[in-house]
Amino acid sequence: MPRTLTHLADGRELIYFDTALTQRRPEGDSRRIAPRSDVPQLRHDPLADEWVVIAGHRMDRTFLPAADDCPLCPSREGHLTEIPCPDYEVVVFENRFPSFTGSGDSLIYGGEGLFETRPAAGRCEVVCFTSDHDGSFARLDAARARLVIEAWADRTAELSALPGIAQVFVFENRGEAIGVTMRHPHGQIYAYPFVTPTTRAHLTSVRRYREETGRNLYDDLVRAELDDGRRVVLESQHWVAFVPFAARWPVEVHLYPRRRVPDLAALSPEVRDDLAEAYLDLLRRGDAFFGIPLPYIAAWHQAPVREQRDDAALHLELFSVQRAVDKLKYLAGSESAMGAFVNDREPESIAQRLREGGGA
Amino acid sequence: MPRTLTHLADGRELIYFDTALTQRRPEGDSRRIAPRSDVPQLRHDPLADEWVVIAGHRMDRTFLPAADDCPLCPSREGHLTEIPCPDYEVVVFENRFPSFTGSGDSLIYGGEGLFETRPAAGRCEVVCFTSDHDGSFARLDAARARLVIEAWADRTAELSALPGIAQVFVFENRGEAIGVTMRHPHGQIYAYPFVTPTTRAHLTSVRRYREETGRNLYDDLVRAELDDGRRVVLESQHWVAFVPFAARWPVEVHLYPRRRVPDLAALSPEVRDDLAEAYLDLLRRGDAFFGIPLPYIAAWHQAPVREQRDDAALHLELFSVQRAVDKLKYLAGSESAMGAFVNDREPESIAQRLREGGGA
Repeated sequence: MPRTLTHLADGRELIYFDTALTQRRPEGDSRRIAPRSDVPQLRHDPLADEWVVIAGHRMDRTFLPAADDCPLCPSREGHLTEIPCPDYEVVVFENRFPSFTGSGDSLIYGGEGLFETRPAAGRCEVVCFTSDHDGSFARLDAARARLVIEAWADRTAELSALPGIAQVFVFENRGEAIGVTMRHPHGQIYAYPFVTPTTRAHLTSVRRYREETGRNLYDDLVRAELDDGRRVVLESQHWVAFVPFAARWPVEVHLYPRRRVPDLAALSPEVRDDLAEAYLDLLRRGDAFFGIPLPYIAAWHQAPVREQRDDAALHLELFSVQRAVDKLKYLAGSESAMGAFVNDREPESIAQRLREGGGA
Repeated sequence: MPRTLTHLADGRELIYFDTALTQRRPEGDSRRIAPRSDVPQLRHDPLADEWVVIAGHRMDRTFLPAADDCPLCPSREGHLTEIPCPDYEVVVFENRFPSFTGSGDSLIYGGEGLFETRPAAGRCEVVCFTSDHDGSFARLDAARARLVIEAWADRTAELSALPGIAQVFVFENRGEAIGVTMRHPHGQIYAYPFVTPTTRAHLTSVRRYREETGRNLYDDLVRAELDDGRRVVLESQHWVAFVPFAARWPVEVHLYPRRRVPDLAALSPEVRDDLAEAYLDLLRRGDAFFGIPLPYIAAWHQAPVREQRDDAALHLELFSVQRAVDKLKYLAGSESAMGAFVNDREPESIAQRLREGGGA
């Protein structure tokens, strides 16, 4: 599928992904916007042994702009946007208000001083997958979803090759209940200079499990869920989705390829084809869950770029804060302060409802 | 200070804490409510190596009742509440919709099977500190705040002595933006059957730091913040508050006693007296931050009941999701899925604003 690289007026990269080569790209960005010079900072929390990004400039980021002022719509006469083109299929560009930017070294944990800082090196990208301001991923057709997957895989490979990148995270925040600041549907990609705390914790368990059993924990988990069956939501030729046994969220489902791979770039074309269908199916079951557009976080867990690639398992974790049609789950004291989750829904009943929502 | 134990109609314990002995307690609870038989379950997440509570009955819990139907107001003719008394100072009772209940063994990590469950043994309590439905902790007087501290210490000691309890967590969720389901101001106490993930992570760092340096990480952190000074918010005779160097939240401040103790029960009367003033001062600075009642989580980190008590440090972490007067910070993809926090505010500027809000 054709891929066209261009640059925005302030020097940021923008890439069009198309199902067929067209004559209309690239067009130049004729806006007058200056490169941003503010660099976010990483600070090490010595108690949690985690890096925190301090990004003061993001306070000024675009916040719920009106539809006719949307920076993710195609450009038109009198309204120049981030996408200098009258239409697009899939387009990826560097975030104007990044949490990570520039190059640096990848970071390890266990810092030395109590007040350690680093530049927040890395990269943040925005993934626009429809020019329809009121659209959603779930309403894409399979061909478009397939093109998005191609873009995800492309970006994963390219960002992984940048110096200092430790993990590439492809995700979508959907809905204002999740904190989305722009209503136009879009995904994001964060290329981190460290392995994220969640991935680090998972891979610690995976390593211990391998030492104890000689087997891979992800493989055994997927097998055990299929054998048990009560939490399985869908199975396709190459993909399996289930509500995890210890689900944290009132709606939560994980999607794994049947054959373990480290990241999206490692998926074969055939498995990508099947993913387009399976992912759309899952998102539509999500919207059917309460009969409203489900606010969700769709998070692709990928192997770190430089370690434990043989152990890790690409998978999607899709979850929502919606706990009833008119109620949200909040991360309050137990979750936010102590990391101890309380889920008001039984995983088996979440799975049943997601299974029944099929085809909606 | 007098402490009066009684029981609610369904058998739950309720304890009045008073500044002076009164004749009016206890009165019987004349409601007809049956004991709840639903027991929440713990499930082990083998990837994160964490216990998750599955508590389906909590879906039915009281949700933002109208003021004249508030279960935390004192009882009056025709409106019997959780507190069978026409007025109260501080009262603590078992939560009717607990995340943890009943007795069991305390749990360790590194479970064996992939689908491990346990009863969610433990205890959840509600702490009412004012009969004023529209009040707030920040508007208590120092004598009342001092009485609350007495109740916290009492509960910490008593719950720690129960079999199977691994950690006692005293906290307050304030504001609907935090997910509070009852507007009447109140705090909570969770007695967990496991050491929470956050505490476990902190104490892992503390243990490693001791092995490497022979010193205590908390002691060195407090000393370093005082020496640096830029993030210090207030100092009293026995307490020190500062914005942590790697703050995760747009408003965040930590409060430590100058002399390290494991938990609230270990504080001397004199240090408790001083805490009443310091804590009220801090909360009032919080409300002055944006000039609105600040939604916050106030979380007391205490030593585990049965391990590492010599290493741990009682301290309060007070933080808010409010990132501007009209904007909230949400835990979206990077935070909720990957555990990687991005803060839009610089810790030094948070501290400066909290310092300037003094006396408000």
